[in-house]
Amino acid sequence: MVEQEGLTVKKDNFTEWYTQIVQKAELADYGPVQGSIAIRPYAYAVWEIIQKVFDEKIKKTGHMNAYFPLLIPESFLKKEAEHFKGFDPEVFWVTHSGNNKLGERLVVRPTSETVIYNFYSKWIRSWRDLPLLLNQWCNVLRAEIKSTKPFIRGSEFLWQEGHTAHATKEDADKEMLSILDEYVDLAENFLAIAVLKGKKSEMEKFPGALTTTTFEGMMPDGKALQMGTSHNLGQNFSKPFEIKFLDKDKKEKFVWNTSWGITTRLIGTVIMVHGDDKGLMLPPRIAPIQVVIVPVYYEDKEKKEVMKKVETTKKELKEFRTKVDDRTEYTPGWKFNEWEMKGVPLRIEIGPKDVKKNQVVLVRRDSKKKTFVKEKDVEKEVKSNLESIQKGMFEKSKKELENMTHQVKDYSDFKEIIEKGGFIKTGWCGEQHCEEQIKLETGATIRIIPFKKEKIFSKCVYCNKEAKEIVYFAKAY
Amino acid sequence: MVEQEGLTVKKDNFTEWYTQIVQKAELADYGPVQGSIAIRPYAYAVWEIIQKVFDEKIKKTGHMNAYFPLLIPESFLKKEAEHFKGFDPEVFWVTHSGNNKLGERLVVRPTSETVIYNFYSKWIRSWRDLPLLLNQWCNVLRAEIKSTKPFIRGSEFLWQEGHTAHATKEDADKEMLSILDEYVDLAENFLAIAVLKGKKSEMEKFPGALTTTTFEGMMPDGKALQMGTSHNLGQNFSKPFEIKFLDKDKKEKFVWNTSWGITTRLIGTVIMVHGDDKGLMLPPRIAPIQVVIVPVYYEDKEKKEVMKKVETTKKELKEFRTKVDDRTEYTPGWKFNEWEMKGVPLRIEIGPKDVKKNQVVLVRRDSKKKTFVKEKDVEKEVKSNLESIQKGMFEKSKKELENMTHQVKDYSDFKEIIEKGGFIKTGWCGEQHCEEQIKLETGATIRIIPFKKEKIFSKCVYCNKEAKEIVYFAKAY
Repeated sequence: MVEQEGLTVKKDNFTEWYTQIVQKAELADYGPVQGSIAIRPYAYAVWEIIQKVFDEKIKKTGHMNAYFPLLIPESFLKKEAEHFKGFDPEVFWVTHSGNNKLGERLVVRPTSETVIYNFYSKWIRSWRDLPLLLNQWCNVLRAEIKSTKPFIRGSEFLWQEGHTAHATKEDADKEMLSILDEYVDLAENFLAIAVLKGKKSEMEKFPGALTTTTFEGMMPDGKALQMGTSHNLGQNFSKPFEIKFLDKDKKEKFVWNTSWGITTRLIGTVIMVHGDDKGLMLPPRIAPIQVVIVPVYYEDKEKKEVMKKVETTKKELKEFRTKVDDRTEYTPGWKFNEWEMKGVPLRIEIGPKDVKKNQVVLVRRDSKKKTFVKEKDVEKEVKSNLESIQKGMFEKSKKELENMTHQVKDYSDFKEIIEKGGFIKTGWCGEQHCEEQIKLETGATIRIIPFKKEKIFSKCVYCNKEAKEIVYFAKAY
Repeated sequence: MVEQEGLTVKKDNFTEWYTQIVQKAELADYGPVQGSIAIRPYAYAVWEIIQKVFDEKIKKTGHMNAYFPLLIPESFLKKEAEHFKGFDPEVFWVTHSGNNKLGERLVVRPTSETVIYNFYSKWIRSWRDLPLLLNQWCNVLRAEIKSTKPFIRGSEFLWQEGHTAHATKEDADKEMLSILDEYVDLAENFLAIAVLKGKKSEMEKFPGALTTTTFEGMMPDGKALQMGTSHNLGQNFSKPFEIKFLDKDKKEKFVWNTSWGITTRLIGTVIMVHGDDKGLMLPPRIAPIQVVIVPVYYEDKEKKEVMKKVETTKKELKEFRTKVDDRTEYTPGWKFNEWEMKGVPLRIEIGPKDVKKNQVVLVRRDSKKKTFVKEKDVEKEVKSNLESIQKGMFEKSKKELENMTHQVKDYSDFKEIIEKGGFIKTGWCGEQHCEEQIKLETGATIRIIPFKKEKIFSKCVYCNKEAKEIVYFAKAY
């Protein structure tokens, strides 16, 4: 489309800013069903990189991919009571095939524990079959009817769901935690987003889980965002689904399951955390285009020498994801705006003057800083600039997370601060009653119970009884 | 599972043989819904390789991946009448979300033309936006109620569906044909399966297409199998969906669409064509494990030196997909059977005697031939053996295709030969009446109208009028 228009609002107008960036950077478009979107190629390319990074991580640790059916019989979903209660209100129901009414209604998977564990009960017989470490990359559907937002909350999203079976609780705990660590590594070292990690409270855990762990980021509008979860499901599923194995001691036992997932929501997090008034800003390690080269000439006689230099520069940058934007129907200025909107970390401009001087112009997306780089230094400079952008983006996110985390002792301060947003670190007695009252009165929930115990508050922020845990509260997406 | 059992039937008992191989090589397992399966890790790994090969092909030619919604409003599906008629009887209908009845029924995508072209009508404005070359890897569902067979025909399968938009019919034809060529390359040079390629007749083409092209293989039981299709959809969708663009001549025009797909059915084809009485046989280029190394020792004191040699051999073979089977709970003989069942192209055995002689034992899955290979030649020998297996498998398939293709002039011969199976190459007047009668009387359909015109038959095999086309008939899956 020739017409081009930057963002018409700044980032502090956060909701509208997000909506515009999603559309104008061509990341997603609204679908015909409430809360459904098309993930457009540029955003999908980010997802492909995230997939590749995480897929390599889990394959290295012995996990394999598989694929399980989309449609789950109602009776399966009902086998684990908590699980059914959690998902029943938000599933899509298939009732007919062609013109025939089905004998039993089918759920379009909102998550696959029940259908997968039905297979596991057939596949697992002996200790030799354990651990079983499978994962699938697929779509899941949840009929979200309120506050849908592209990537963040919708009726369909893409994810990976790992489902494992182990001989002991200890093995399952170890799996749950090692996956969580891989997630945090992905968030910090690839998405350049600083996160908190820890456990969920009983009230906030996954329906059917024994323990839920999570990692969460803080968005610029002061709301926390759950970026992924890793659960120890205990024997809550292996008992109803009868996933039993004959152990080395000749005794029949139920397995311990874990499940864990990250979704296309991560794309939304990246937009929110890193974008600015000019548009998207992508961390180099997950940017589909790390360097865009824009030839700059205004007369045809200049074209040949400029394009020759563009091509040799591209060749030198072959270890990076480099794109040459040689479209003739757009001006250089138009292209600069487009690639800034799309958050490409580095832009290289090459014009006739640069050809003469054996240099290129390097422009950083983060600082907008422009430098002239000698031809022989291009590869080296691109490399160090990409690294410094990646590092700088994470440092910035880390600082923001720190700035938006408040230690609070008194409930009156709690109420005041939570209105402005951010994490509140405080003491909690461990009683669900206090947690519920705080949620009711402020809208904030316990996002994280850190693994590391600290003794900074001795009393529960709500009831003033002894604090059993130090926790992070926040309002959340 | 410790209990191990080879196939109890030979390949000539084809249906039962296929069922056994799918289960015993752990390729798939039956799901709870009629025609649904779980694709188990080993088969899914084959699919991942196919995905990688084809994904690279289409990205090289400028295609990008995206993702579109699973659920399609009924009104969208109805916009193209032929398309609706073709798919309506076999779709799953979503009628409720949670406890709420939906205002409009939703189709679980059986294919995505209608939902994708709704987006294209928003994204395409000018000739600058063309061609639009998108693809998605996803699941699709079709309520198949009869003759379901894992991988070959089921209620859900995985596929890629390419959807492109072009300015002219010529551009769309070119796209359709170049994709078909990529498919044939995939079939012949990766899956090692010889195929026929060509057009479909009006009766057999995709509901809503202008032209359907296809590539088909011949299965050992004499039935043809459609392995993928590439369509020029003409303006059949761009008109109802109003996908218009302003051309360089300032005139508003409807785009020309193509769509094309290959599915997890390809895995079924590989099983059928290459398997033998011992189990699966995988062409090296798509084998998740190309070489399995099995240490062979019976006493603990031999273990150390054997395992050392196993490790150095594995390191030397790092350019291949190599697995060391060092499980101690199984005997070498048990492992040999397992990897033969799973169709690994090459097995390397290393025992104490081999360590002494600086050699390894190399066993080919295709010929079962055993050779002793000097340590220094291992990499070279593995490479040349994998290449020769790949080539040999394709040659064999090509010969089988030739042997099962019959040139037939008379209808009485036609009826006799078609009972035995295979392709029948014959003359056809081009009238739908003859095509329908032949289908009615013999069960055979026109599988392929070759692109290359030959003048080998002057008369229609059914009506004896002038032949307009030379075509291939067969019974088919």
